[in-house]
Amino acid sequence: MDSWKLEYRCFNPQQQGLREALCTLGNGYFACRGAAPEATADDVHYPATYIAGCYNRLQTEIAGETIENESLVNAPNWLLLSFRIEGGDWFNLSEADILSYHQQLDIKQAILTRTLRFRGPAGRHTCIEQRRLVSMDQPHLAALQTLIYAEDWSGAIEIRSALDGHIVNAGVERYRDLNNLHLKSLTAESVTDDMCWLEVETNQSHIRIAQAATTRFWRGDKVIGLKPRVDRLEGSISHLYKTELDANQPLRIEKIAAIYTSRDHAISEPGLEARKAVAQSATFEQLAGRHILLWKQLWRRFDFDIVHEDAEEEDRTEQILRLHILHLIQTTSPHVMDLDVGVPARGLHGEAYRGHIFWDELFVFPLFNLRMPEITRALLRYRYRRLDEARRAARKAGYHGAMYPWQSASNGREESQHLHLNPKSGNWIADNSHLQRHINAAVAYNVWQYYQVTRDMEFLSFYGAEMLLEIARFWASLASYNEELARFVILRVMGPDEYHDAYPDKDQPGLNNNAYTNLMAVWVLLRALDLREILPTQRFSELCQTLNLSKEEFALWDEISRNMHVPFHQDDHGHDIISQFEGYQELAEFDWEGYRNKYGDIQRLDRILEAENDSPNRYKVSKQADVLMLFYLLSSEELDELLTHLGYSFEYETIPRNIDYYLERTSHGSTLSRVVNSWVLARANRPGAWALFTEALNSDVADIQGGTTPEGIHTGAMAGTVDLIQRCFTGIETRGDVLWLNPSLPEGLKSLNLNIRYRQHVLGLQMTTTCVRICTEPSAEQPIQIGIGGKIYHLKQGEVREFQL
Amino acid sequence: MDSWKLEYRCFNPQQQGLREALCTLGNGYFACRGAAPEATADDVHYPATYIAGCYNRLQTEIAGETIENESLVNAPNWLLLSFRIEGGDWFNLSEADILSYHQQLDIKQAILTRTLRFRGPAGRHTCIEQRRLVSMDQPHLAALQTLIYAEDWSGAIEIRSALDGHIVNAGVERYRDLNNLHLKSLTAESVTDDMCWLEVETNQSHIRIAQAATTRFWRGDKVIGLKPRVDRLEGSISHLYKTELDANQPLRIEKIAAIYTSRDHAISEPGLEARKAVAQSATFEQLAGRHILLWKQLWRRFDFDIVHEDAEEEDRTEQILRLHILHLIQTTSPHVMDLDVGVPARGLHGEAYRGHIFWDELFVFPLFNLRMPEITRALLRYRYRRLDEARRAARKAGYHGAMYPWQSASNGREESQHLHLNPKSGNWIADNSHLQRHINAAVAYNVWQYYQVTRDMEFLSFYGAEMLLEIARFWASLASYNEELARFVILRVMGPDEYHDAYPDKDQPGLNNNAYTNLMAVWVLLRALDLREILPTQRFSELCQTLNLSKEEFALWDEISRNMHVPFHQDDHGHDIISQFEGYQELAEFDWEGYRNKYGDIQRLDRILEAENDSPNRYKVSKQADVLMLFYLLSSEELDELLTHLGYSFEYETIPRNIDYYLERTSHGSTLSRVVNSWVLARANRPGAWALFTEALNSDVADIQGGTTPEGIHTGAMAGTVDLIQRCFTGIETRGDVLWLNPSLPEGLKSLNLNIRYRQHVLGLQMTTTCVRICTEPSAEQPIQIGIGGKIYHLKQGEVREFQL
Repeated sequence: MDSWKLEYRCFNPQQQGLREALCTLGNGYFACRGAAPEATADDVHYPATYIAGCYNRLQTEIAGETIENESLVNAPNWLLLSFRIEGGDWFNLSEADILSYHQQLDIKQAILTRTLRFRGPAGRHTCIEQRRLVSMDQPHLAALQTLIYAEDWSGAIEIRSALDGHIVNAGVERYRDLNNLHLKSLTAESVTDDMCWLEVETNQSHIRIAQAATTRFWRGDKVIGLKPRVDRLEGSISHLYKTELDANQPLRIEKIAAIYTSRDHAISEPGLEARKAVAQSATFEQLAGRHILLWKQLWRRFDFDIVHEDAEEEDRTEQILRLHILHLIQTTSPHVMDLDVGVPARGLHGEAYRGHIFWDELFVFPLFNLRMPEITRALLRYRYRRLDEARRAARKAGYHGAMYPWQSASNGREESQHLHLNPKSGNWIADNSHLQRHINAAVAYNVWQYYQVTRDMEFLSFYGAEMLLEIARFWASLASYNEELARFVILRVMGPDEYHDAYPDKDQPGLNNNAYTNLMAVWVLLRALDLREILPTQRFSELCQTLNLSKEEFALWDEISRNMHVPFHQDDHGHDIISQFEGYQELAEFDWEGYRNKYGDIQRLDRILEAENDSPNRYKVSKQADVLMLFYLLSSEELDELLTHLGYSFEYETIPRNIDYYLERTSHGSTLSRVVNSWVLARANRPGAWALFTEALNSDVADIQGGTTPEGIHTGAMAGTVDLIQRCFTGIETRGDVLWLNPSLPEGLKSLNLNIRYRQHVLGLQMTTTCVRICTEPSAEQPIQIGIGGKIYHLKQGEVREFQL
Repeated sequence: MDSWKLEYRCFNPQQQGLREALCTLGNGYFACRGAAPEATADDVHYPATYIAGCYNRLQTEIAGETIENESLVNAPNWLLLSFRIEGGDWFNLSEADILSYHQQLDIKQAILTRTLRFRGPAGRHTCIEQRRLVSMDQPHLAALQTLIYAEDWSGAIEIRSALDGHIVNAGVERYRDLNNLHLKSLTAESVTDDMCWLEVETNQSHIRIAQAATTRFWRGDKVIGLKPRVDRLEGSISHLYKTELDANQPLRIEKIAAIYTSRDHAISEPGLEARKAVAQSATFEQLAGRHILLWKQLWRRFDFDIVHEDAEEEDRTEQILRLHILHLIQTTSPHVMDLDVGVPARGLHGEAYRGHIFWDELFVFPLFNLRMPEITRALLRYRYRRLDEARRAARKAGYHGAMYPWQSASNGREESQHLHLNPKSGNWIADNSHLQRHINAAVAYNVWQYYQVTRDMEFLSFYGAEMLLEIARFWASLASYNEELARFVILRVMGPDEYHDAYPDKDQPGLNNNAYTNLMAVWVLLRALDLREILPTQRFSELCQTLNLSKEEFALWDEISRNMHVPFHQDDHGHDIISQFEGYQELAEFDWEGYRNKYGDIQRLDRILEAENDSPNRYKVSKQADVLMLFYLLSSEELDELLTHLGYSFEYETIPRNIDYYLERTSHGSTLSRVVNSWVLARANRPGAWALFTEALNSDVADIQGGTTPEGIHTGAMAGTVDLIQRCFTGIETRGDVLWLNPSLPEGLKSLNLNIRYRQHVLGLQMTTTCVRICTEPSAEQPIQIGIGGKIYHLKQGEVREFQL
């Protein structure tokens, strides 16, 4: 098994969706699926700029309204390339007599190859070899190379190469009733014998998307100039080329396409740039050469190396993790540094969640922070650009500061649906997910982590600090003082566990004192208070003026940070458990066994219960146990500090006790849940860690939710599993200007090597069960502090250090 | 005299253009003129994003072609607000019986106020007070507050508030024959009684520009709700309000306007955002409060303080320098940090040069580098985004690396005209200014200076180094080896002195071995070679791979850097003078006295000579002496190093000798020329320095070129004069990780205080003729090195040091 290759050796239409999602190619600017050798209508390719550039008007179709949904729109189809032999039917994979089929995603090179052999009419054998790429070197370009071998015949072949703007967004079944035609045709023209182009405009946001493509032919090394018949329809343009296929010589066809939108920088207008880009473009081989080089450099930054007792286990793990890294880089590559985009929960790989931005970046940024933090910086600026809208939302809801939305798109307003469909019951159900105010803790946490890893004072000064301060202000205004408890409380919110959005039999949505929310709010207030010491004096005073921050306000934050309420209840053994929210202990225990027996897969217990006219709100059940999120985001030292600061007692046993308590009551209805659980268990239970880790690995490759992966991969879960290797097993924590290492390799894992970046230093880490070796590259940077086993060491540039564990 | 105010106490239509240019308001996103209380058609307001977002198709009208010129387009007019009394004529400043007129630009607050009193029909006296601002707080907003006092009458008044998309670009007389209608109307609608909006689209680049405005009325503190008559025409929308004016109570009218374009980040579509922005906007006073606060913070960073023997001189100098700083910040404010814009040579203040980007940033960046380097960073990224286009240009011209264009606009292609008009003769003359390859030295120099001041390794790694290396490569490919000289030569280019573009009587344009170009090319090669030591190893090796840079190529650069040819000739005393270019000594001396007698102003000698069928190419005359640029950009130490490295001898006397030689032969046909000359003379001639400095100060306020300022202020000259205070008199040089100070206050100047930023430290500098005092703010940054009098001192955070001179 080659851990750098993902292979499918037969054609299986049932698995097609999953395979397409996993074999999607992208470069941060746009992505493109494509599994069939003739392109199909579901050849998805979203420009990344576009995802953040659109606007979602309304998502439900209750009142029969005309519905606009432009948050994720398929760009015109550039892959269209088909052929027919001797005037027969156009080739179609599902109808052809396929003799062999082999599809390979080269993970290292980000090139997809398919080879197939089929028998045509009159028993003619033909072999097709096709390679495609979405260039990491030139983000606007994609290329498709097709070789056609006539094995035992000669004769006429006709090739159709087209650009098609008649695009339907139909990738997610439950959205199909919504409006899914978003493009207006503007132009579709043939430019030269080998070039055509088209331009479309989105209906509501008026973004122009232009494509140009060249199609060129070779017989051996010889270019063949063919004069096409032009077939031009409203919104689509085809070139039809006729030539002779010779049994002795394959025909090579190269289609190079460019895509530009009106939101791109440094352009005149998208059509002109697209035509210029393909007119001057290189051959497939030249493009591939540069593309592979850029990927080589990315792998040098992002790869890792593990040695496991079981070689097969080692290969499989490396393969899946590399596939995950591939998809993450394809979604948020270095090209996002100059784009206004966030981290879409489902990558650029499918239409689910409509390309919206949720809190998934909380799971994605740790990976980028330690490998290429410039990417995180760019993605955090997406949040900064929407700070004003978050301020507006807070004001409108009666709060101060900035309230980031649970779902976000083009202009940063709240995009959460008010209703959602339960496909199990066919009911439209009230959706209160906008009450997940904890997104604001995630944004603040991400700002802080990025700063801790990079010490990027420019970012903190001009963007990060303002977000942190405004979010702190929001939390302070959301908290109210409860005289009885003599503590601050946060009422009517939802935690990450989406099974609970209200108290049973209460009309009003929301829960009180969600422990995760309350504790993270305190964490945010403390970090905002830290800024007083960290920011340059001049900038700090500017910010206080601009934001009108007074000493009294800081004093209030300090007070809340010492007196926030955290609910506890006791488990069966009389030990304190952090309550998921106030009143959690009053809920009924759930009949796990009964439901498992009845339904088998109960990951989506919410849908099952709703269809039974019941609700998870009545039970001690979690889709994702949100108390455990605390152990994921905060080290035990940090949690100890936090609870002590609040005047609650904390002992190390609190953690395993809570883990045991909640895992018994969790259905894992979220891919993120598995990552979090693996993480917290891995730290608590070294022998079992590997098994848990490999289970989390499978989310997407095995499509364990049964059908969600074809609708889009899960960026949070993919990054989370890589981060289990990167930060969990190594025990990396960046806190208080120290890089803490606390390795704990799971049983079976013999060693783990990776390169990370910390405060401009490139550090090579080599870990075994007994030893950590750290190498630094020579540089002129400030020495850094490494914490191991409770001690802090100063590491200078170019130093190599070894620590015995 | 208040050095924070610019006042005009009478209405003078002749001076109107100059006054409008100097009183333009802007915020980096857009700028707006406006001197008359009723807005006029030349109310210019360009969105800054737009300037870089457009495309200049062709600029001359030789063959009667349809001409597109969208590089600078007036956005629709939002200032339109007029009134008429008792159904009379609409008020018009040039026809009214004006009794008093007072216009004041508050430089500290960036607010323009006009007060005027006029006598209407039937002897009625009315007073108008009007304030306007372009918000520095909310870059999309502008506001106009008008108070109308009926002094001795009561009666009906009608107010017309409009948005008008019928816009003509007619600000520059010599461009008026070119196409000057660039906007297509899309929408013009009334939204509510107090709000209307309109949208237009540019013809070629299809950029949408949307505006919305609210008009609200107060009598005292009481809001008056008025129902307007709506007057809607294709491309314009007016609200007409009728009310009563009372002798005892002024009527207050506030018009708040928002402008968005389709190129903005974080928007759905521009119309929606514009309407949202004004619907929720504050009152004029609230907007002004925030606007003034933001300016206060900017002044804290950008201001300076001088004490001069002559108090009046001191006030006048401070006033002009502050006016310059105001205009520079208005052009490239902190809001450009998230825009794709460069430094337009004429600011956002006029239409001359069509908003194009030249080399003026070379004169502007030093100011920002030491005050708010984040702005420079953003503007350098404008260049980085156009690196690919520069590579394309180099390739097309047969060179390697990247060749930046002399004039640049939306997509970075060369926009220099092929012909230009001599208004003196009416002839269209071949324009070879694209041969000014030295722009590539300027871009590289700017990258390096920014890095030296900030040590911003992220910028250098991801953007700066790539530009430097590609430009170095270009210079190496432009240089050829001359066997006879046994040195490298650069042939057929133009230096900054635009009077010389060819040898007399030669058909082919270009000159050989322009000394400025050759020496700066060597300087670039040396800095590119320095990168090997400076960049992190990993990044450097990535760049070498990506750019395919070999050891052989570095070796070639090293060889060229040691063996570039520099031409010299001898002056009348037999001393070596650096020749402006090869063969300069063969040119005829010019009859300066004869021409001064004949023409008076001979700044534009090129036009005078061309009209006589002669050419400056024949004479030893310079518009701008480009050898002197060397002494401006490089300290004598650096120049010594450079020439010694090349195997030429250098002695300190070389500098004054060259200065004398070239100044005798310069016509100062460029505003930049005065800055450079003042600079080089100030260092060489302390007693005369002040007089030279004050002369350079006058470029724009006195419109010394006779008419160019109304067509747009000169950003390079404005920044250059501030920089004379900032770097020339203080002797600041940032080189080799040291902040060098070498103060030399001109006679008359008693002290000079300013705050600068150097490598994240905020340094307060106080200088007198005998002493330098340096204070640093406490911070956690690395100590810095200060060089004074040849010695290097280490300065820690929070330290205060005094040095006697």
